Amino acid sequence: MNPKEIITKIQELLITNNLDAYIIPSTDPHQSEYVANHWKAREWVSGFTGSAGTLVITKEIAGLWTDSRYFLQAEQQLIGSGIELFKMKVPHSHPYIDWLKNNLKENSKVSFDGKLFSVSLTKMIESSLTDYNIKIESNHDFIKPLWKNRPSIPTNNIFIHDIKFAGKSSIEKISQVRSIMIEKNVTCHILSSLDDIAWLFNIRGNDVKYNPVVISYALITLDNAFLFIDKNLDDDIKETFKKNNITILPYSKINDRINEFCKNQTILLNPSKINNCIFRSIPSSCKIIEDVNITTTLKATKNATEINNIKEVMVRDGVALTKFFYWLENNILQETITELSVDKKLQFYRSQQKNFVGLSFGTISAYNSHGAIVHYEPTKKTDVELMKEGIFLIDSGGQYLDGTTDITRTISLAKPKQEAINNFTLVLKGHINIASLKFPYGTKGYQIDILARKFLWDNYKNYGHGTGHGVGSFLNVHEGPQGISPNASSTLNINFEEGMLTSNEPGIYIENEYGIRIENLILCEKDKDTEFGKFMKFNTVSLCYIDKSLINIDLLSKDEIKWLNDYHKTVYEKISPFLNNDEKEWLKEKTKSL
Amino acid sequence: MNPKEIITKIQELLITNNLDAYIIPSTDPHQSEYVANHWKAREWVSGFTGSAGTLVITKEIAGLWTDSRYFLQAEQQLIGSGIELFKMKVPHSHPYIDWLKNNLKENSKVSFDGKLFSVSLTKMIESSLTDYNIKIESNHDFIKPLWKNRPSIPTNNIFIHDIKFAGKSSIEKISQVRSIMIEKNVTCHILSSLDDIAWLFNIRGNDVKYNPVVISYALITLDNAFLFIDKNLDDDIKETFKKNNITILPYSKINDRINEFCKNQTILLNPSKINNCIFRSIPSSCKIIEDVNITTTLKATKNATEINNIKEVMVRDGVALTKFFYWLENNILQETITELSVDKKLQFYRSQQKNFVGLSFGTISAYNSHGAIVHYEPTKKTDVELMKEGIFLIDSGGQYLDGTTDITRTISLAKPKQEAINNFTLVLKGHINIASLKFPYGTKGYQIDILARKFLWDNYKNYGHGTGHGVGSFLNVHEGPQGISPNASSTLNINFEEGMLTSNEPGIYIENEYGIRIENLILCEKDKDTEFGKFMKFNTVSLCYIDKSLINIDLLSKDEIKWLNDYHKTVYEKISPFLNNDEKEWLKEKTKSL
Repeated sequence: MNPKEIITKIQELLITNNLDAYIIPSTDPHQSEYVANHWKAREWVSGFTGSAGTLVITKEIAGLWTDSRYFLQAEQQLIGSGIELFKMKVPHSHPYIDWLKNNLKENSKVSFDGKLFSVSLTKMIESSLTDYNIKIESNHDFIKPLWKNRPSIPTNNIFIHDIKFAGKSSIEKISQVRSIMIEKNVTCHILSSLDDIAWLFNIRGNDVKYNPVVISYALITLDNAFLFIDKNLDDDIKETFKKNNITILPYSKINDRINEFCKNQTILLNPSKINNCIFRSIPSSCKIIEDVNITTTLKATKNATEINNIKEVMVRDGVALTKFFYWLENNILQETITELSVDKKLQFYRSQQKNFVGLSFGTISAYNSHGAIVHYEPTKKTDVELMKEGIFLIDSGGQYLDGTTDITRTISLAKPKQEAINNFTLVLKGHINIASLKFPYGTKGYQIDILARKFLWDNYKNYGHGTGHGVGSFLNVHEGPQGISPNASSTLNINFEEGMLTSNEPGIYIENEYGIRIENLILCEKDKDTEFGKFMKFNTVSLCYIDKSLINIDLLSKDEIKWLNDYHKTVYEKISPFLNNDEKEWLKEKTKSL
Repeated sequence: MNPKEIITKIQELLITNNLDAYIIPSTDPHQSEYVANHWKAREWVSGFTGSAGTLVITKEIAGLWTDSRYFLQAEQQLIGSGIELFKMKVPHSHPYIDWLKNNLKENSKVSFDGKLFSVSLTKMIESSLTDYNIKIESNHDFIKPLWKNRPSIPTNNIFIHDIKFAGKSSIEKISQVRSIMIEKNVTCHILSSLDDIAWLFNIRGNDVKYNPVVISYALITLDNAFLFIDKNLDDDIKETFKKNNITILPYSKINDRINEFCKNQTILLNPSKINNCIFRSIPSSCKIIEDVNITTTLKATKNATEINNIKEVMVRDGVALTKFFYWLENNILQETITELSVDKKLQFYRSQQKNFVGLSFGTISAYNSHGAIVHYEPTKKTDVELMKEGIFLIDSGGQYLDGTTDITRTISLAKPKQEAINNFTLVLKGHINIASLKFPYGTKGYQIDILARKFLWDNYKNYGHGTGHGVGSFLNVHEGPQGISPNASSTLNINFEEGMLTSNEPGIYIENEYGIRIENLILCEKDKDTEFGKFMKFNTVSLCYIDKSLINIDLLSKDEIKWLNDYHKTVYEKISPFLNNDEKEWLKEKTKSL
């Protein structure tokens, strides 16, 4: 069937079910950032392949809401589908709710598949529409009967994440979760976010692109740990689970089992992670405590093993990056180098490193004006050749068995213009301002975000994204609970804790010209106890030179120059032992003191 | 009756009413910061005269919770009362709730007078205690029958705040409120915060110390404006109200009238301002929208008249301050000058200025170690003489018909120690960092707070209070909705708007030695439109020299020195025309460029 035909079928289903609108989102039952093909229903119905977008179908029309990074692509892919494109101003927002309010009559019914909507989003839709006497029905799956040849839910093998990487056994982690449950007066904890589950059970898989997670649910009580997965398990894995007192149940049984096990329980769940279908299966005798998952905070504060590992991973990732940039500088115009080929080459260098598994996200390889598109990912259609001029931005990361990386460098491919140099320097000043911060324990991400922007603001400039996100340990490259952003609502009560790994990535984007971003990962460490309380600091763990040809030294303070020189000294010391002589000489120059 | 006798009576009332605990807070039915004597029940029962404290009486014991600024005072004042002192770690918190949880049996009943508890606090108490099967009854006034000779609710005269000060007529303001009510789909707005009501109706009074407000409630519908006051009104005031279509009703009738007028209404109210007794009187047919009062935001964004006025007030307030500091420097040790006499002298200089009405809060006149007590107010018992040594901090403000001031200066009374100089300079750098900030529209107070602390943090130092609060226009010296604080929850959605007047007051406090704080008021203004959006800036409007003898110039950047020199130039230009020759010469020296 083509989009037009599918939409007609859905409209027929609306009529037979006495409904007025059907919403199809981009996510899966786990609120994942990257979803398995099985859940790409919005793509299947509309033909639009972008990662973010919501399709709304009424009896009369179908509309797709997506954000600026996909406007062009959506316009092209929707041709002939009869689907109208609605342009979203703010990514991750839900303007289609307002549209429904304004376009449906009173007493209309809006429907969707509750598995694909978080409890929070469902509540938000409901409370917005109630005022207009529009009801919601969240138990309609129109996709299942229509989608023949649908890819099945992944059943790829899983593997145990060795304790030499994880640092703590699953049994230890579960017991830690339980003691916090007892503190919080909670008897049951439902988990549906895949990275939380992978962390807790020390399992990994490749059900989803970029995130080494396993399609699963979990239910932790004070006596039992239930893992809901559909996998053929090797005997040794079965043995491990058994030894750790973990009960394996079928993935599809989560709702039934919650309904059965959870009578009269006090249940902790994260309403922005748990889907509404699970929520509805909770017996009414239960008391619900809404909070961040216990696992999310434990997972974010890396243990000593994970910290040692990530520091070693950073050396290997840095070696790959250095070899890549050396190759790029020496081969540009000698051979045809494009945004896409660059991505392949960098992946090749990473793949030469120990414990490399794959990329941690789709590489943003962006030449000149493409760099100004914040989430640009080159495709065959947009790919361009790199020339000896202008600015090249590359944001990439690797999954290694012992850690996850995420790094952005912006380099000049020829003598840069003064304006670009000044902008780069302002971004660098913001980056250093975060990296060198000392702060009292209790400080939150929303407090420090301005430090990355202040020098841009002084020059009436700014950037439109957050400054940092948490990073997993051989897990998702984007994880909570901490972050660095001007938006306080998601980190309202989240202190920076020892062991949290966060990105530090200010930037600036000049439309139609270039983008600049400098990103390292920073590890939160204790600095010292003082009469004003405990102070914390960040330790920059990413290791790759920062392009000095883009720096205006006159704009840097003495302390900033010292930070950069110290950083470059560390980069050279840690990376050079793994380079050949030519590369070593080259890196010496790149990291020479200002 | 003495405290012991009153508490015994209350314990008898607990028994006859089958209750287990009674809570007496420090506030009034309007959640005022300063309350009329009529509502000082906690003081009457306990003998403790501090501004903040909560008394809890069970059948067995009575306890008073207060914060560190009152520990000493409470210990002394509670002697012989039989009341136990509980020391609060965090001001404005409610640790007595946990105490009740841990000390009452299941099925106990906690009671209080709902008029004195906001809807938010009542909900918080209720939800905390429910888990422990403890119920609340919020309709018990035990004070009324017991307190003979109780001061009556103030019935002082009120006066109209002239349009030449207010800038907008009451009728204009009410119509502005109504258009926002229509936007928000609201048909009724209940106001109980006294400054909101005084602002809306352009009335002022002196029912409460420091705040020129009138004891009142108000109810705004799309057609009517009801003002609930018990006052003998002059004919011209009656006329004004009539002309503006404002209906006067008795103060005590608020609950009845809400119950009567508000059937089937959609009511906007601020749950942290409205008391629980009013809330309970709202008919169940109503829909409640909880939000900041519409008036609070309108009041905070000063109009052109108010802005012109405050700038003129600042000149007069600055003249009074300059004459005061000149007198202090030239008379110290010549006559006996104490913390209390200093306060009187400064008030004298302010009273010489046009339109002066009174102080805007109790002066913090704090010599040496007293300065380290953040909310120190000298009393006859604590008063000390100022000598030619050490550090003197004075935080004071005036109410003028045309505006409200709030300013802190810290001066050295002799050659200061290097450590104090360095600390003062770090505080000054933070102050300048806020004062000179340029920021994109949409920036919130919690984002910028760190700018005032960063230099202290760099040196492992900090201060334990917020950086700024809103200031009224001949109204409360503390007003919302904006503020500058590391705590984001109260300003989560509050942008800095053009016309908002906010304090900028970083500090540092060295226990048993001294306190340093530098406070000016800053007015938010539009800077300019840029390709990165609209940018805003602050304009420092307070006018008084900053003590250069406490500055280590080596710690200041070129830009910071320029800011200070520019500021001092403005101070001299605006203040000197109102000084005699000696004072003028002296100020010239105090404001000479670094």
